[in-house]
Amino acid sequence: MRHLLSTKTLGYDEAIGLLDVAEDMAATQQREVKKLPTLRGKAVVNLFFEDSTRTRISFEAAAKRLSADVINFSAKGSSVSKGESLKDTAQTLEAMGADAVVIRHSASGAPRTLASSGWISAGVLNAGDGTHEHPTQALLDAFTMRKRAHGSASRARDLNGMHVVIVGDILHSRVVRSNVWLLSTLGAHVTLVAPPTLLPVDVSGWPVRISYDLDEVLRGEPDVVMLLRIQSERMHDAFFPNSREYSRRWGLDDARFARLPQSTIVMHPGPMNRGLEISSLAADSVQSTVREQVTNGVSVRMAALYLLLSGDREDSL
Amino acid sequence: MRHLLSTKTLGYDEAIGLLDVAEDMAATQQREVKKLPTLRGKAVVNLFFEDSTRTRISFEAAAKRLSADVINFSAKGSSVSKGESLKDTAQTLEAMGADAVVIRHSASGAPRTLASSGWISAGVLNAGDGTHEHPTQALLDAFTMRKRAHGSASRARDLNGMHVVIVGDILHSRVVRSNVWLLSTLGAHVTLVAPPTLLPVDVSGWPVRISYDLDEVLRGEPDVVMLLRIQSERMHDAFFPNSREYSRRWGLDDARFARLPQSTIVMHPGPMNRGLEISSLAADSVQSTVREQVTNGVSVRMAALYLLLSGDREDSL
Amino acid sequence: MRHLLSTKTLGYDEAIGLLDVAEDMAATQQREVKKLPTLRGKAVVNLFFEDSTRTRISFEAAAKRLSADVINFSAKGSSVSKGESLKDTAQTLEAMGADAVVIRHSASGAPRTLASSGWISAGVLNAGDGTHEHPTQALLDAFTMRKRAHGSASRARDLNGMHVVIVGDILHSRVVRSNVWLLSTLGAHVTLVAPPTLLPVDVSGWPVRISYDLDEVLRGEPDVVMLLRIQSERMHDAFFPNSREYSRRWGLDDARFARLPQSTIVMHPGPMNRGLEISSLAADSVQSTVREQVTNGVSVRMAALYLLLSGDREDSL
Repeated sequence: MRHLLSTKTLGYDEAIGLLDVAEDMAATQQREVKKLPTLRGKAVVNLFFEDSTRTRISFEAAAKRLSADVINFSAKGSSVSKGESLKDTAQTLEAMGADAVVIRHSASGAPRTLASSGWISAGVLNAGDGTHEHPTQALLDAFTMRKRAHGSASRARDLNGMHVVIVGDILHSRVVRSNVWLLSTLGAHVTLVAPPTLLPVDVSGWPVRISYDLDEVLRGEPDVVMLLRIQSERMHDAFFPNSREYSRRWGLDDARFARLPQSTIVMHPGPMNRGLEISSLAADSVQSTVREQVTNGVSVRMAALYLLLSGDREDSL
Repeated sequence: MRHLLSTKTLGYDEAIGLLDVAEDMAATQQREVKKLPTLRGKAVVNLFFEDSTRTRISFEAAAKRLSADVINFSAKGSSVSKGESLKDTAQTLEAMGADAVVIRHSASGAPRTLASSGWISAGVLNAGDGTHEHPTQALLDAFTMRKRAHGSASRARDLNGMHVVIVGDILHSRVVRSNVWLLSTLGAHVTLVAPPTLLPVDVSGWPVRISYDLDEVLRGEPDVVMLLRIQSERMHDAFFPNSREYSRRWGLDDARFARLPQSTIVMHPGPMNRGLEISSLAADSVQSTVREQVTNGVSVRMAALYLLLSGDREDSL
Repeated sequence: MRHLLSTKTLGYDEAIGLLDVAEDMAATQQREVKKLPTLRGKAVVNLFFEDSTRTRISFEAAAKRLSADVINFSAKGSSVSKGESLKDTAQTLEAMGADAVVIRHSASGAPRTLASSGWISAGVLNAGDGTHEHPTQALLDAFTMRKRAHGSASRARDLNGMHVVIVGDILHSRVVRSNVWLLSTLGAHVTLVAPPTLLPVDVSGWPVRISYDLDEVLRGEPDVVMLLRIQSERMHDAFFPNSREYSRRWGLDDARFARLPQSTIVMHPGPMNRGLEISSLAADSVQSTVREQVTNGVSVRMAALYLLLSGDREDSL
């Protein structure tokens, strides 16, 4: 793997391969000394044009466990804010010896531009671009579903036939886009549930079913219910239901949670608005995978860094 | 030791034990290669809800000397500022593999809440909470007093019978609170000197003597005079004396310093307002321990991290 | 070498020695594992009173490749912003165990004050002070010229007889000052080209030729043309030509670049304003050393850290 930019272009074998490596990484994290020498001397740059402490820390922890050196580059107050182009910034980082660039950018497509332009030879990892994709989030979600569904002997297994329901602001969510493509590749069926104003106008190319009625969908006893975070900056938007209405119609409140089968797992990418899109009862239940998702995020990112930075990098995007 | 939250609840044996380990750590810092492999593979997160470059750097230096990985988490611009709860933040950090969380928070009691709620199993180190406590500051102060009083053969010795005078804004100082309890545990006598408006209304439970007259107290030839930093943000407060009056009545100026016995040591937690609470002559004198306190701070924090992260952590708060 | 503060006071042998060590460092960076154990256990503090992501990252990468621990100290939001003196900040960092302090400061002379006052024993590296000097930038520029001129067998060679043209805002540039002194020491001839309002009033002591006419100078077929970055904050200044006029008269545009001999190298310290002081054609040409300069910057900073922190530090400034 040369870069990790998107789940839409990630093949089945590549995806399963990454999840399997992540499984190995997770196993090493049970040891007394969790640190592996694998990427000693490699330099990973976190190039964040948007704040995202969680994602940055997860990549930082993953890289450090593999003994890579990590350099954090926040675009604020840097030459980027003085008008430097993405090309010049990236070439500067590579010239300093960056072996991988983890990039978060407000512009959809920025990571692919970086990787496919020939500007740099470093591996590029998309840590979220605009409303486009957030592939490591989808991979950690798939890893979490696979582990819950199949247990630790989950190697080489996919999500064939699973039913995953994703609820929330689909319109603005890169997490949803990455999940839709990856889940489809891995054989799962996806239903998106949202207020009509928070759905893209045209989802005709998406391998999903759409619904506006959460209760109807939950009666189908899905394997997974994933709640998305409500971005507070959206909530003053005229097209957005007020928080009380949102919670009543699209929130996983105590009543809805009680009606779910015990085998249904409850997911959230975090940080949660408790009481809004998810109740505390649901969030803290044994069915919730919120904390596992975070732990698995480090394993998945270790796997991605490993595949990009060690041995022969295959020339596929 | 499972957590380090407070000196009020720190027993005599625990305190002496920590100071003795700090003594060992200080000895290793004289070597050519100062780095120890002790905490290799452990992850320490600096979770700072308030800016404090000095304390953050001291913990960071301590952790790195023990070969731990350090991740800095400043709450500004993070999901915390988007309203994430302390519980969710902490659980996220632990799920990412944090073995210890060093927390600075504006709310008194936040570190104890974190440690005692059962939310996380990582060790919690209080790096300053509201006006409550700052235990590693008190421990480094005690370490400094012990070393000056008893020399390097100070092992297993306490501060029995020493007279420590602390001068300044007692009302708002967590440093004072941590010092009062620890000094008392270690056998020292404490006198607090302050303008009446900068003393707590009720200090009836505190093992201290109170005075408003610095000169009278200094005539008693104390072993230690500790000056607190005047927070400039307080100085526009109606209850605060103006800086000229403060300096004249409660500052360790050149004249007062000249009258001190040469055996009296002069302490300050830094950063100093030279010319306000302490004169440059006093600050830079051989009686001053300002720089030793900083050096000892790293040793004490190495000891705390070591006790929390290696071997068997005892289940006491 | 005890400190690296200025190229004006750097002797010929010292400069050549540093460039030779940088050559060795560059060679190690071609290996599979780029990390050297040389400075294991040493602590390097980046003390930045001004933002400069590029320079900070370059020093950070250099220190980490030598296995030093790096602590980033941004003066914003720190006790420095609460009025702490440079002396107290520096003594605090040294007391915490800093072996080297990399300082960027808005006041010309701050690094020398730090180093020569006797306040600290740590090595001081000037990473840019006011409009005074930026010595590692000049050293990486000289390293780049030497390598291009003499190839990799460049050891122990200087820049004797080379003609270097530097174009731009000479008045405010610390990069120019450091380059002028170092290039002169190494035997190069320097011509400064600028609008009259962007030249210092008195350059009588500088070993340079002055010109206001770029085309006339370029007709002399210089070995090197170095373009300086136009600081956008200057461009609203009444003494500054507007950007169209600047580009027309002092920019290396496509036409001027086409007239240069193919042996002339084109340099820029970055970040570039493409289309203003340099055209993209020139910046991306094989004659451009912009990316090499960045790579060489890490090697030169590794050399500087090595010379300051390992073995016997000679007592010269």
